[in-house]
Amino acid sequence: MPGTEATKALTAAVVDSFHDTPDPRLRELLQGLVRHLHGYVRELRPTMKEWEYAVEYLTAVGQKCDPTRQEFILLSDVLGVSMLVETVNEQSGGTESTVLGPFHVVESPKRDSGDNIDLLGTGTPGVVSVRVMAVDGSPLAGANVDVWQCNEDGFYDVQQPEIQPLGNGRGLFRTDHEGRLWFRTVVPSHYPIPTDGPVGLLLDSTERHPYRPAHIHFIVEADGYRPLTTHIFVADSPYLDSDAVFAVKESLVVDFARVDDEEEARRRQVTAPFRLAEFDITVEPEKNVEPEKNKDAR
Amino acid sequence: MPGTEATKALTAAVVDSFHDTPDPRLRELLQGLVRHLHGYVRELRPTMKEWEYAVEYLTAVGQKCDPTRQEFILLSDVLGVSMLVETVNEQSGGTESTVLGPFHVVESPKRDSGDNIDLLGTGTPGVVSVRVMAVDGSPLAGANVDVWQCNEDGFYDVQQPEIQPLGNGRGLFRTDHEGRLWFRTVVPSHYPIPTDGPVGLLLDSTERHPYRPAHIHFIVEADGYRPLTTHIFVADSPYLDSDAVFAVKESLVVDFARVDDEEEARRRQVTAPFRLAEFDITVEPEKNVEPEKNKDAR
Repeated sequence: MPGTEATKALTAAVVDSFHDTPDPRLRELLQGLVRHLHGYVRELRPTMKEWEYAVEYLTAVGQKCDPTRQEFILLSDVLGVSMLVETVNEQSGGTESTVLGPFHVVESPKRDSGDNIDLLGTGTPGVVSVRVMAVDGSPLAGANVDVWQCNEDGFYDVQQPEIQPLGNGRGLFRTDHEGRLWFRTVVPSHYPIPTDGPVGLLLDSTERHPYRPAHIHFIVEADGYRPLTTHIFVADSPYLDSDAVFAVKESLVVDFARVDDEEEARRRQVTAPFRLAEFDITVEPEKNVEPEKNKDAR
Repeated sequence: MPGTEATKALTAAVVDSFHDTPDPRLRELLQGLVRHLHGYVRELRPTMKEWEYAVEYLTAVGQKCDPTRQEFILLSDVLGVSMLVETVNEQSGGTESTVLGPFHVVESPKRDSGDNIDLLGTGTPGVVSVRVMAVDGSPLAGANVDVWQCNEDGFYDVQQPEIQPLGNGRGLFRTDHEGRLWFRTVVPSHYPIPTDGPVGLLLDSTERHPYRPAHIHFIVEADGYRPLTTHIFVADSPYLDSDAVFAVKESLVVDFARVDDEEEARRRQVTAPFRLAEFDITVEPEKNVEPEKNKDAR
Protein backbone atom coordinates (compact mmCIF):
# COMPACT_ATOMS: atom_id res chain seq x y z
CA MET A 1 0.00 0.00 0.00
CA PRO A 2 1.55 3.27 -1.06
CA GLY A 3 1.73 6.20 1.32
CA THR A 4 -0.56 9.18 1.10
CA GLU A 5 2.21 11.02 -0.77
CA ALA A 6 1.38 9.22 -4.03
CA THR A 7 -2.36 9.79 -3.71
CA LYS A 8 -1.92 13.46 -2.81
CA ALA A 9 0.36 14.04 -5.77
CA LEU A 10 -2.23 12.43 -8.03
CA THR A 11 -5.04 14.60 -6.68
CA ALA A 12 -2.90 17.72 -7.13
CA ALA A 13 -2.14 16.73 -10.74
CA VAL A 14 -5.83 16.22 -11.55
CA VAL A 15 -6.85 19.50 -9.89
CA ASP A 16 -4.08 21.23 -11.84
CA SER A 17 -5.26 19.70 -15.13
CA PHE A 18 -8.33 21.97 -14.92
CA HIS A 19 -6.18 25.05 -14.43
CA ASP A 20 -6.78 26.44 -17.92
CA THR A 21 -10.59 26.14 -17.83
CA PRO A 22 -11.77 29.46 -19.31
CA ASP A 23 -14.99 29.69 -17.25
CA PRO A 24 -13.93 30.36 -13.64
CA ARG A 25 -17.12 28.87 -12.18
CA LEU A 26 -16.71 25.66 -14.17
CA ARG A 27 -13.10 25.47 -13.01
CA GLU A 28 -14.15 25.92 -9.39
CA LEU A 29 -16.90 23.28 -9.66
CA LEU A 30 -14.63 20.72 -11.30
CA GLN A 31 -11.60 21.27 -9.09
CA GLY A 32 -13.87 21.01 -6.05
CA LEU A 33 -15.42 17.84 -7.46
CA VAL A 34 -11.99 16.27 -7.88
CA ARG A 35 -10.98 17.17 -4.31
CA HIS A 36 -14.16 15.76 -2.80
CA LEU A 37 -14.32 12.63 -5.00
CA HIS A 38 -10.69 11.87 -4.30
CA GLY A 39 -11.29 12.50 -0.60
CA TYR A 40 -14.00 9.85 -0.73
CA VAL A 41 -11.76 7.32 -2.46
CA ARG A 42 -8.87 8.03 -0.10
CA GLU A 43 -11.06 7.56 2.97
CA LEU A 44 -13.25 4.64 1.86
CA ARG A 45 -10.60 2.86 -0.25
CA PRO A 46 -13.00 1.07 -2.64
CA THR A 47 -11.66 -2.16 -4.09
CA MET A 48 -11.43 -2.54 -7.86
CA LYS A 49 -14.55 -4.72 -7.71
CA GLU A 50 -16.42 -2.00 -5.84
CA TRP A 51 -15.27 0.60 -8.38
CA GLU A 52 -16.44 -1.64 -11.23
CA TYR A 53 -19.78 -2.06 -9.48
CA ALA A 54 -20.12 1.72 -9.15
CA VAL A 55 -19.39 2.16 -12.87
CA GLU A 56 -21.99 -0.46 -13.78
CA TYR A 57 -24.49 1.04 -11.36
CA LEU A 58 -24.16 4.59 -12.70
CA THR A 59 -24.36 3.26 -16.26
CA ALA A 60 -27.61 1.48 -15.38
CA VAL A 61 -28.99 4.68 -13.82
CA GLY A 62 -28.30 6.60 -17.03
CA GLN A 63 -29.76 3.89 -19.20
CA LYS A 64 -32.96 3.75 -17.14
CA CYS A 65 -33.65 7.36 -18.12
CA ASP A 66 -36.00 8.20 -20.96
CA PRO A 67 -38.08 11.27 -21.81
CA THR A 68 -40.48 10.61 -18.92
CA ARG A 69 -38.22 8.76 -16.46
CA GLN A 70 -35.35 10.56 -14.72
CA GLU A 71 -33.46 8.03 -12.63
CA PHE A 72 -30.52 10.35 -11.90
CA ILE A 73 -32.84 12.88 -10.25
CA LEU A 74 -34.26 9.99 -8.26
CA LEU A 75 -30.75 8.96 -7.20
CA SER A 76 -29.92 12.55 -6.25
CA ASP A 77 -33.21 12.66 -4.31
CA VAL A 78 -32.68 9.50 -2.23
CA LEU A 79 -29.12 10.58 -1.40
CA GLY A 80 -30.49 13.86 -0.08
CA VAL A 81 -28.43 15.80 -2.64
CA SER A 82 -31.43 17.42 -4.35
CA MET A 83 -32.77 18.65 -1.03
CA LEU A 84 -29.35 19.92 0.01
CA VAL A 85 -28.95 21.88 -3.24
CA GLU A 86 -32.39 23.40 -2.65
CA THR A 87 -31.41 24.24 0.91
CA VAL A 88 -28.11 25.98 0.12
CA ASN A 89 -29.90 28.09 -2.49
CA GLU A 90 -32.71 29.12 -0.22
CA GLN A 91 -33.01 32.67 1.03
CA SER A 92 -34.82 33.51 4.20
CA GLY A 93 -38.06 35.42 4.08
CA GLY A 94 -40.19 33.64 1.50
CA THR A 95 -41.98 30.31 1.43
CA GLU A 96 -39.54 27.44 1.91
CA SER A 97 -38.48 25.51 -1.16
CA THR A 98 -38.21 21.79 -1.64
CA VAL A 99 -37.11 19.31 -4.31
CA LEU A 100 -38.18 19.38 -7.95
CA GLY A 101 -38.51 15.59 -8.08
CA PRO A 102 -38.33 13.41 -11.19
CA PHE A 103 -41.86 13.96 -12.54
CA HIS A 104 -41.60 17.48 -13.92
CA VAL A 105 -41.01 15.89 -17.31
CA VAL A 106 -43.89 17.10 -19.47
CA GLU A 107 -45.28 20.58 -19.93
CA SER A 108 -48.33 21.35 -17.83
CA PRO A 109 -51.40 22.30 -19.88
CA LYS A 110 -52.47 25.93 -19.47
CA ARG A 111 -55.52 26.11 -17.23
CA ASP A 112 -57.79 28.80 -15.86
CA SER A 113 -58.42 29.39 -12.20
CA GLY A 114 -61.23 27.10 -11.07
CA ASP A 115 -60.40 24.38 -13.61
CA ASN A 116 -60.32 20.75 -12.61
CA ILE A 117 -56.85 19.20 -13.12
CA ASP A 118 -58.30 15.77 -12.40
CA LEU A 119 -59.42 14.55 -15.82
CA LEU A 120 -60.75 11.20 -14.58
CA GLY A 121 -63.16 12.11 -11.81
CA THR A 122 -62.07 9.36 -9.44
CA GLY A 123 -60.88 9.93 -5.90
CA THR A 124 -61.66 12.23 -3.04
CA PRO A 125 -62.56 15.65 -4.47
CA GLY A 126 -60.28 18.45 -3.36
CA VAL A 127 -60.04 22.17 -3.82
CA VAL A 128 -56.71 23.96 -3.56
CA SER A 129 -56.68 27.73 -3.16
CA VAL A 130 -53.44 29.67 -3.32
CA ARG A 131 -52.47 33.29 -2.84
CA VAL A 132 -49.09 34.46 -4.18
CA MET A 133 -47.53 37.43 -2.41
CA ALA A 134 -44.33 39.38 -2.13
CA VAL A 135 -42.52 39.34 1.20
CA ASP A 136 -44.20 42.65 2.13
CA GLY A 137 -47.60 40.97 1.79
CA SER A 138 -48.62 42.65 -1.46
CA PRO A 139 -50.45 40.30 -3.87
CA LEU A 140 -48.66 39.34 -7.10
CA ALA A 141 -50.92 39.39 -10.13
CA GLY A 142 -49.97 37.51 -13.30
CA ALA A 143 -47.57 35.09 -11.60
CA ASN A 144 -47.17 31.73 -13.34
CA VAL A 145 -47.96 28.79 -11.07
CA ASP A 146 -47.05 25.35 -12.42
CA VAL A 147 -48.79 22.54 -10.53
CA TRP A 148 -48.34 18.78 -10.74
CA GLN A 149 -49.44 15.91 -8.53
CA CYS A 150 -50.15 12.20 -8.52
CA ASN A 151 -53.65 10.73 -8.50
CA GLU A 152 -55.40 9.06 -5.59
CA ASP A 153 -53.55 5.82 -6.32
CA GLY A 154 -50.17 7.54 -6.06
CA PHE A 155 -49.24 7.59 -9.76
CA TYR A 156 -48.38 10.51 -12.04
CA ASP A 157 -49.81 10.65 -15.55
CA VAL A 158 -46.51 9.62 -17.18
CA GLN A 159 -46.41 6.47 -15.04
CA GLN A 160 -49.81 5.27 -16.24
CA PRO A 161 -50.04 6.20 -19.92
CA GLU A 162 -52.76 3.61 -20.46
CA ILE A 163 -54.95 4.84 -17.60
CA GLN A 164 -54.27 8.57 -17.29
CA PRO A 165 -54.34 11.04 -20.17
CA LEU A 166 -51.14 13.10 -20.40
CA GLY A 167 -51.64 16.29 -18.40
CA ASN A 168 -53.80 14.64 -15.76
CA GLY A 169 -52.95 16.19 -12.41
CA ARG A 170 -51.06 19.05 -14.08
CA GLY A 171 -51.87 22.68 -14.73
CA LEU A 172 -50.15 25.94 -15.53
CA PHE A 173 -52.13 28.77 -13.90
CA ARG A 174 -51.82 32.53 -13.66
CA THR A 175 -52.74 34.47 -10.55
CA ASP A 176 -55.52 37.05 -10.70
CA HIS A 177 -55.32 40.69 -9.61
CA GLU A 178 -55.46 39.59 -5.96
CA GLY A 179 -52.59 37.11 -6.49
CA ARG A 180 -55.07 34.27 -6.23
CA LEU A 181 -55.76 31.07 -8.12
CA TRP A 182 -57.68 27.95 -7.24
CA PHE A 183 -58.25 24.59 -8.84
CA ARG A 184 -60.19 21.41 -8.39
CA THR A 185 -58.38 18.09 -8.13
CA VAL A 186 -58.32 14.81 -6.22
CA VAL A 187 -56.48 14.58 -2.94
CA PRO A 188 -53.09 13.06 -3.83
CA SER A 189 -51.92 9.88 -2.13
CA HIS A 190 -48.62 9.03 -0.51
CA TYR A 191 -46.71 6.78 -2.92
CA PRO A 192 -43.54 4.80 -3.46
CA ILE A 193 -40.97 6.40 -5.77
CA PRO A 194 -40.37 4.12 -8.77
CA THR A 195 -38.56 1.02 -7.53
CA ASP A 196 -38.15 -0.92 -10.78
CA GLY A 197 -34.73 0.58 -11.50
CA PRO A 198 -31.29 0.95 -9.91
CA VAL A 199 -32.61 3.37 -7.25
CA GLY A 200 -35.14 0.76 -6.16
CA LEU A 201 -32.30 -1.72 -5.85
CA LEU A 202 -30.41 0.75 -3.67
CA LEU A 203 -33.38 1.22 -1.33
CA ASP A 204 -33.98 -2.51 -1.20
CA SER A 205 -30.33 -3.33 -0.41
CA THR A 206 -30.30 -0.79 2.39
CA GLU A 207 -33.72 -1.68 3.83
CA ARG A 208 -35.04 1.81 3.22
CA HIS A 209 -38.73 2.24 2.35
CA PRO A 210 -39.52 4.06 -0.92
CA TYR A 211 -42.49 6.13 0.25
CA ARG A 212 -43.16 9.83 -0.04
CA PRO A 213 -45.91 11.56 1.93
CA ALA A 214 -48.81 12.92 -0.14
CA HIS A 215 -47.99 16.29 -1.73
CA ILE A 216 -48.65 18.67 -4.61
CA HIS A 217 -45.75 20.28 -6.50
CA PHE A 218 -45.54 23.99 -7.31
CA ILE A 219 -43.17 26.16 -9.31
CA VAL A 220 -44.01 29.85 -8.93
CA GLU A 221 -42.50 32.41 -11.29
CA ALA A 222 -43.23 36.12 -11.13
CA ASP A 223 -41.35 38.90 -12.92
CA GLY A 224 -38.75 40.44 -10.66
CA TYR A 225 -38.95 37.62 -8.09
CA ARG A 226 -36.89 34.52 -7.45
CA PRO A 227 -38.54 31.43 -8.92
CA LEU A 228 -39.71 29.07 -6.18
CA THR A 229 -39.89 25.27 -6.42
CA THR A 230 -41.84 23.75 -3.55
CA HIS A 231 -44.58 21.33 -2.43
CA ILE A 232 -47.50 21.42 -0.09
CA PHE A 233 -47.79 18.25 1.97
CA VAL A 234 -51.13 16.80 3.04
CA ALA A 235 -51.21 17.15 6.83
CA ASP A 236 -52.69 13.73 7.62
CA SER A 237 -50.51 11.76 5.22
CA PRO A 238 -48.32 8.90 6.42
CA TYR A 239 -44.52 9.18 5.91
CA LEU A 240 -44.32 12.88 6.81
CA ASP A 241 -41.59 11.81 9.24
CA SER A 242 -39.62 9.60 6.85
CA ASP A 243 -39.95 10.96 3.30
CA ALA A 244 -37.71 8.82 1.05
CA VAL A 245 -36.27 12.00 -0.47
CA PHE A 246 -35.95 14.11 2.73
CA ALA A 247 -38.11 16.91 1.31
CA VAL A 248 -40.57 17.64 4.13
CA LYS A 249 -40.42 21.01 5.84
CA GLU A 250 -42.87 21.70 8.63
CA SER A 251 -43.91 25.03 7.12
CA LEU A 252 -45.08 23.23 3.97
CA VAL A 253 -47.51 20.87 5.70
CA VAL A 254 -51.04 22.07 4.93
CA ASP A 255 -54.37 20.94 6.34
CA PHE A 256 -56.71 19.53 3.70
CA ALA A 257 -59.83 20.25 5.75
CA ARG A 258 -63.03 18.31 5.24
CA VAL A 259 -65.86 20.57 4.08
CA ASP A 260 -69.44 19.30 4.35
CA ASP A 261 -71.14 22.58 3.45
CA GLU A 262 -73.28 22.05 0.32
CA GLU A 263 -73.31 25.76 -0.53
CA GLU A 264 -69.50 25.97 -0.48
CA ALA A 265 -69.33 22.77 -2.55
CA ARG A 266 -71.67 24.26 -5.15
CA ARG A 267 -69.61 27.46 -5.24
CA ARG A 268 -66.48 25.33 -5.85
CA GLN A 269 -68.23 23.13 -8.41
CA VAL A 270 -67.62 19.95 -6.41
CA THR A 271 -69.84 17.67 -4.37
CA ALA A 272 -69.75 17.67 -0.58
CA PRO A 273 -67.95 16.38 1.33
CA PHE A 274 -64.69 17.63 -0.20
CA ARG A 275 -61.25 18.58 1.12
CA LEU A 276 -60.10 22.20 1.04
CA ALA A 277 -56.49 23.37 1.23
CA GLU A 278 -55.81 27.10 1.45
CA PHE A 279 -52.36 28.60 1.76
CA ASP A 280 -50.12 31.52 0.86
CA ILE A 281 -46.92 31.42 -1.16
CA THR A 282 -44.44 34.22 -0.58
CA VAL A 283 -41.64 34.89 -3.07
CA GLU A 284 -38.49 36.94 -2.65
CA PRO A 285 -37.36 39.76 -4.88
CA GLU A 286 -34.59 38.90 -7.31
CA LYS A 287 -32.45 41.72 -6.02
CA ASN A 288 -31.59 39.57 -2.99
CA VAL A 289 -29.42 37.56 -5.36
CA GLU A 290 -25.94 38.75 -6.27
CA PRO A 291 -25.70 39.58 -10.00
CA GLU A 292 -23.39 36.69 -10.94
CA LYS A 293 -25.62 34.14 -9.27
CA ASN A 294 -28.70 35.79 -10.65
CA LYS A 295 -28.06 34.73 -14.22
CA ASP A 296 -27.81 31.09 -13.08
CA ALA A 297 -30.93 31.07 -10.95
CA ARG A 298 -33.73 28.97 -12.30
CA MET B 1 -29.72 31.64 2.97
CA PRO B 2 -30.16 29.20 5.83
CA GLY B 3 -27.37 28.59 8.32
CA THR B 4 -25.25 25.46 8.30
CA GLU B 5 -27.52 24.01 11.00
CA ALA B 6 -30.20 23.07 8.47
CA THR B 7 -27.73 21.52 6.04
CA LYS B 8 -25.97 19.56 8.78
CA ALA B 9 -29.27 18.20 10.07
CA LEU B 10 -30.15 17.10 6.55
CA THR B 11 -26.83 15.33 6.05
CA ALA B 12 -27.23 13.59 9.41
CA ALA B 13 -30.74 12.43 8.45
CA VAL B 14 -29.52 10.99 5.13
CA VAL B 15 -26.54 9.24 6.75
CA ASP B 16 -28.90 7.82 9.36
CA SER B 17 -31.31 6.56 6.68
CA PHE B 18 -28.68 3.96 5.74
CA HIS B 19 -28.36 2.77 9.34
CA ASP B 20 -30.20 -0.51 8.79
CA THR B 21 -28.19 -1.59 5.74
CA PRO B 22 -27.48 -5.27 6.41
CA ASP B 23 -24.09 -5.38 4.64
CA PRO B 24 -21.68 -3.34 6.81
CA ARG B 25 -19.36 -2.54 3.89
CA LEU B 26 -22.24 -1.26 1.76
CA ARG B 27 -23.39 0.86 4.71
CA GLU B 28 -19.90 2.30 5.13
CA LEU B 29 -19.55 3.06 1.41
CA LEU B 30 -22.95 4.75 1.18
CA GLN B 31 -22.73 6.75 4.38
CA GLY B 32 -19.27 7.93 3.32
CA LEU B 33 -20.61 8.83 -0.11
CA VAL B 34 -23.36 10.94 1.45
CA ARG B 35 -20.90 12.75 3.70
CA HIS B 36 -18.51 13.54 0.85
CA LEU B 37 -21.20 14.44 -1.72
CA HIS B 38 -22.92 16.70 0.79
CA GLY B 39 -19.56 18.22 1.68
CA TYR B 40 -19.11 19.08 -1.98
CA VAL B 41 -22.56 20.70 -2.24
CA ARG B 42 -22.08 22.60 1.00
CA GLU B 43 -18.73 23.98 -0.13
CA LEU B 44 -19.42 24.67 -3.82
CA ARG B 45 -23.10 25.64 -3.43
CA PRO B 46 -24.24 24.66 -6.94
CA THR B 47 -27.22 26.61 -8.24
CA MET B 48 -30.36 24.72 -9.29
CA LYS B 49 -29.31 25.26 -12.91
CA GLU B 50 -25.91 23.76 -12.22
CA TRP B 51 -27.54 20.78 -10.46
CA GLU B 52 -29.87 20.29 -13.44
CA TYR B 53 -26.88 20.44 -15.78
CA ALA B 54 -25.09 17.80 -13.71
CA VAL B 55 -28.16 15.52 -13.87
CA GLU B 56 -28.37 15.94 -17.64
CA TYR B 57 -24.64 15.41 -18.01
CA LEU B 58 -24.57 12.17 -16.01
CA THR B 59 -27.64 10.93 -17.90
CA ALA B 60 -25.84 11.59 -21.19
CA VAL B 61 -22.76 9.72 -19.92
CA GLY B 62 -24.89 6.67 -19.11
CA GLN B 63 -26.72 6.82 -22.40
CA LYS B 64 -23.46 7.02 -24.36
CA CYS B 65 -22.54 3.57 -23.02
CA ASP B 66 -23.10 0.44 -25.07
CA PRO B 67 -21.53 -3.03 -25.04
CA THR B 68 -18.27 -1.68 -26.49
CA ARG B 69 -18.29 1.91 -25.21
CA GLN B 70 -17.89 2.67 -21.51
CA GLU B 71 -18.24 6.42 -21.03
CA PHE B 72 -18.45 6.22 -17.20
CA ILE B 73 -15.04 4.55 -17.05
CA LEU B 74 -13.78 7.31 -19.31
CA LEU B 75 -15.24 9.93 -16.96
CA SER B 76 -13.70 8.20 -13.95
CA ASP B 77 -10.42 8.10 -15.88
CA VAL B 78 -10.23 11.80 -16.79
CA LEU B 79 -11.15 12.79 -13.22
CA GLY B 80 -8.24 10.70 -11.96
CA VAL B 81 -10.61 8.52 -9.93
CA SER B 82 -9.70 5.27 -11.72
CA MET B 83 -6.01 5.88 -11.11
CA LEU B 84 -6.63 6.79 -7.48
CA VAL B 85 -8.60 3.59 -6.88
CA GLU B 86 -5.75 1.61 -8.44
CA THR B 87 -3.28 3.47 -6.26
CA VAL B 88 -5.06 2.94 -2.93
CA ASN B 89 -5.30 -0.77 -3.72
CA GLU B 90 -1.68 -1.18 -4.65
CA GLN B 91 0.71 -3.05 -2.44
CA SER B 92 4.41 -2.42 -2.49
CA GLY B 93 6.77 -5.04 -3.85
CA GLY B 94 5.36 -6.05 -7.21
CA THR B 95 5.07 -4.30 -10.55
CA GLU B 96 3.07 -1.10 -10.27
CA SER B 97 -0.53 -1.17 -11.43
CA THR B 98 -2.37 1.32 -13.57
CA VAL B 99 -5.88 1.91 -14.90
CA LEU B 100 -8.03 -0.69 -16.65
CA GLY B 101 -9.32 1.85 -19.17
CA PRO B 102 -12.55 1.65 -21.15
CA PHE B 103 -11.45 -0.80 -23.87
CA HIS B 104 -11.37 -4.08 -21.96
CA VAL B 105 -14.84 -4.73 -23.34
CA VAL B 106 -14.48 -7.91 -25.39
CA GLU B 107 -12.82 -11.19 -24.51
CA SER B 108 -9.30 -11.56 -25.82
CA PRO B 109 -8.82 -14.56 -28.12
CA LYS B 110 -6.62 -17.31 -26.69
CA ARG B 111 -3.20 -17.19 -28.31
CA ASP B 112 0.05 -19.11 -28.09
CA SER B 113 3.37 -17.57 -27.24
CA GLY B 114 4.95 -16.23 -30.43
CA ASP B 115 1.58 -15.49 -32.09
CA ASN B 116 0.99 -12.25 -33.91
CA ILE B 117 -1.82 -10.22 -32.32
CA ASP B 118 -1.75 -7.81 -35.27
CA LEU B 119 -4.14 -9.38 -37.76
CA LEU B 120 -3.70 -6.70 -40.41
CA GLY B 121 0.05 -6.55 -40.97
CA THR B 122 0.25 -2.77 -41.13
CA GLY B 123 2.48 -0.65 -38.95
CA THR B 124 5.92 -0.90 -37.42
CA PRO B 125 6.56 -4.52 -36.45
CA GLY B 126 7.17 -5.07 -32.77
CA VAL B 127 8.02 -7.96 -30.51
CA VAL B 128 7.04 -7.92 -26.85
CA SER B 129 8.67 -10.38 -24.50
CA VAL B 130 7.49 -10.73 -20.91
CA ARG B 131 8.62 -12.71 -17.90
CA VAL B 132 6.20 -13.16 -15.00
CA MET B 133 7.75 -13.69 -11.61
CA ALA B 134 6.92 -13.82 -7.93
CA VAL B 135 8.44 -11.16 -5.68
CA ASP B 136 11.25 -13.58 -4.76
CA GLY B 137 12.24 -13.78 -8.43
CA SER B 138 10.93 -17.29 -9.08
CA PRO B 139 9.25 -17.67 -12.49
CA LEU B 140 5.49 -18.27 -12.55
CA ALA B 141 4.45 -20.94 -15.06
CA GLY B 142 0.85 -21.09 -16.29
CA ALA B 143 -0.05 -17.49 -15.46
CA ASN B 144 -2.79 -15.97 -17.62
CA VAL B 145 -1.69 -12.78 -19.34
CA ASP B 146 -4.43 -10.78 -21.04
CA VAL B 147 -3.06 -8.23 -23.53
CA TRP B 148 -4.83 -5.48 -25.46
CA GLN B 149 -3.60 -2.49 -27.42
CA CYS B 150 -4.53 -0.06 -30.16
CA ASN B 151 -3.13 -0.21 -33.67
CA GLU B 152 -0.56 2.09 -35.23
CA ASP B 153 -3.29 4.66 -35.94
CA GLY B 154 -4.33 4.76 -32.29
CA PHE B 155 -7.61 2.83 -32.51
CA TYR B 156 -8.76 -0.32 -30.73
CA ASP B 157 -10.58 -3.02 -32.68
CA VAL B 158 -13.99 -2.08 -31.21
CA GLN B 159 -13.56 1.51 -32.41
CA GLN B 160 -13.05 0.46 -36.05
CA PRO B 161 -15.37 -2.49 -36.65
CA GLU B 162 -15.23 -1.90 -40.40
CA ILE B 163 -11.44 -1.85 -40.57
CA GLN B 164 -10.23 -4.12 -37.76
CA PRO B 165 -11.48 -7.65 -37.11
CA LEU B 166 -12.66 -8.15 -33.51
CA GLY B 167 -9.73 -9.43 -31.48
CA ASN B 168 -7.15 -7.43 -33.39
CA GLY B 169 -4.52 -6.24 -30.94
CA ARG B 170 -5.77 -8.63 -28.26
CA GLY B 171 -4.52 -11.92 -26.90
CA LEU B 172 -4.90 -14.14 -23.87
CA PHE B 173 -1.58 -15.91 -23.26
CA ARG B 174 -0.20 -18.37 -20.72
CA THR B 175 3.34 -18.24 -19.46
CA ASP B 176 5.67 -21.20 -20.10
CA HIS B 177 7.72 -23.12 -17.50
CA GLU B 178 10.15 -20.18 -17.28
CA GLY B 179 7.30 -17.71 -16.71
CA ARG B 180 7.79 -16.34 -20.21
CA LEU B 181 5.61 -15.41 -23.14
CA TRP B 182 6.19 -13.32 -26.21
CA PHE B 183 4.10 -12.05 -29.04
CA ARG B 184 4.36 -10.17 -32.29
CA THR B 185 2.39 -6.99 -32.81
CA VAL B 186 2.62 -3.46 -34.22
CA VAL B 187 4.02 -0.70 -32.07
CA PRO B 188 0.94 1.07 -30.62
CA SER B 189 0.46 4.78 -31.17
CA HIS B 190 -0.42 7.53 -28.73
CA TYR B 191 -4.09 8.38 -29.25
CA PRO B 192 -6.95 10.60 -28.16
CA ILE B 193 -9.52 9.00 -25.88
CA PRO B 194 -12.95 9.07 -27.56
CA THR B 195 -14.09 12.69 -27.70
CA ASP B 196 -17.47 12.30 -29.40
CA GLY B 197 -19.34 11.99 -26.09
CA PRO B 198 -19.87 13.91 -22.84
CA VAL B 199 -16.28 13.27 -21.69
CA GLY B 200 -15.01 14.89 -24.89
CA LEU B 201 -17.19 17.89 -24.12
CA LEU B 202 -15.68 18.07 -20.63
CA LEU B 203 -12.13 18.06 -21.99
CA ASP B 204 -13.04 20.62 -24.62
CA SER B 205 -14.71 22.98 -22.13
CA THR B 206 -11.69 22.82 -19.86
CA GLU B 207 -9.06 23.10 -22.60
CA ARG B 208 -7.55 19.75 -21.68
CA HIS B 209 -6.08 17.61 -24.47
CA PRO B 210 -7.47 14.09 -24.88
CA TYR B 211 -4.22 12.22 -25.58
CA ARG B 212 -2.76 9.17 -23.97
CA PRO B 213 0.86 8.13 -24.52
CA ALA B 214 1.36 4.87 -26.46
CA HIS B 215 0.92 1.79 -24.28
CA ILE B 216 -0.05 -1.88 -24.14
CA HIS B 217 -2.49 -3.13 -21.47
CA PHE B 218 -1.90 -6.22 -19.35
CA ILE B 219 -3.90 -8.14 -16.78
CA VAL B 220 -1.83 -10.87 -15.14
CA GLU B 221 -3.51 -13.58 -13.09
CA ALA B 222 -1.67 -16.43 -11.40
CA ASP B 223 -3.04 -18.85 -8.81
CA GLY B 224 -2.20 -17.68 -5.32
CA TYR B 225 -1.16 -14.20 -6.47
CA ARG B 226 -2.91 -10.85 -6.55
CA PRO B 227 -4.23 -10.09 -10.04
CA LEU B 228 -2.36 -7.17 -11.61
CA THR B 229 -3.81 -4.63 -14.05
CA THR B 230 -1.14 -2.52 -15.67
CA HIS B 231 0.33 -1.06 -18.88
CA ILE B 232 3.71 -0.77 -20.43
CA PHE B 233 4.31 2.65 -21.98
CA VAL B 234 6.43 3.16 -25.10
CA ALA B 235 9.47 5.13 -23.94
CA ASP B 236 9.65 7.54 -26.88
CA SER B 237 5.93 8.31 -27.03
CA PRO B 238 4.61 11.86 -26.76
CA TYR B 239 2.29 12.69 -23.83
CA LEU B 240 4.17 10.62 -21.24
CA ASP B 241 4.15 13.80 -19.14
CA SER B 242 0.47 14.66 -19.60
CA ASP B 243 -1.55 11.46 -19.98
CA ALA B 244 -5.25 12.46 -20.16
CA VAL B 245 -6.05 9.76 -17.58
CA PHE B 246 -3.05 10.27 -15.23
CA ALA B 247 -1.95 6.64 -15.59
CA VAL B 248 1.79 6.92 -16.28
CA LYS B 249 4.23 5.57 -13.71
CA GLU B 250 7.92 5.86 -14.43
CA SER B 251 8.54 2.18 -13.64
CA LEU B 252 6.15 1.19 -16.44
CA VAL B 253 7.93 3.07 -19.22
CA VAL B 254 9.71 0.51 -21.40
CA ASP B 255 12.17 0.99 -24.23
CA PHE B 256 10.94 -0.39 -27.54
CA ALA B 257 14.45 -0.79 -28.92
CA ARG B 258 15.12 -0.83 -32.65
CA VAL B 259 16.62 -4.17 -33.76
CA ASP B 260 18.32 -4.35 -37.17
CA ASP B 261 19.73 -7.85 -36.75
CA GLU B 262 18.35 -10.09 -39.55
CA GLU B 263 19.03 -13.27 -37.59
CA GLU B 264 17.09 -12.04 -34.56
CA ALA B 265 14.26 -10.89 -36.86
CA ARG B 266 14.07 -14.36 -38.45
CA ARG B 267 14.04 -16.01 -35.03
CA ARG B 268 11.14 -13.71 -34.04
CA GLN B 269 9.34 -14.28 -37.38
CA VAL B 270 9.40 -10.58 -38.27
CA THR B 271 11.34 -8.49 -40.75
CA ALA B 272 14.18 -6.20 -39.69
CA PRO B 273 14.16 -3.50 -38.57
CA PHE B 274 11.67 -4.16 -35.76
CA ARG B 275 11.13 -2.84 -32.23
CA LEU B 276 11.74 -5.09 -29.25
CA ALA B 277 10.33 -4.56 -25.75
CA GLU B 278 11.46 -6.86 -22.96
CA PHE B 279 10.35 -6.55 -19.37
CA ASP B 280 9.51 -8.41 -16.19
CA ILE B 281 6.21 -8.40 -14.34
CA THR B 282 6.30 -9.21 -10.64
CA VAL B 283 3.14 -10.18 -8.79
CA GLU B 284 2.49 -10.28 -5.06
CA PRO B 285 1.21 -13.27 -3.13
CA GLU B 286 -2.46 -13.10 -2.19
CA LYS B 287 -1.61 -13.61 1.46
CA ASN B 288 -0.50 -9.94 1.61
CA VAL B 289 -4.19 -9.10 1.47
CA GLU B 290 -6.34 -9.20 4.57
CA PRO B 291 -9.03 -11.91 4.29
CA GLU B 292 -12.01 -9.55 4.05
CA LYS B 293 -10.45 -7.53 1.25
CA ASN B 294 -9.20 -10.65 -0.46
CA LYS B 295 -12.65 -11.80 -1.51
CA ASP B 296 -13.23 -8.47 -3.21
CA ALA B 297 -9.94 -8.26 -5.09
CA ARG B 298 -10.28 -8.51 -8.82
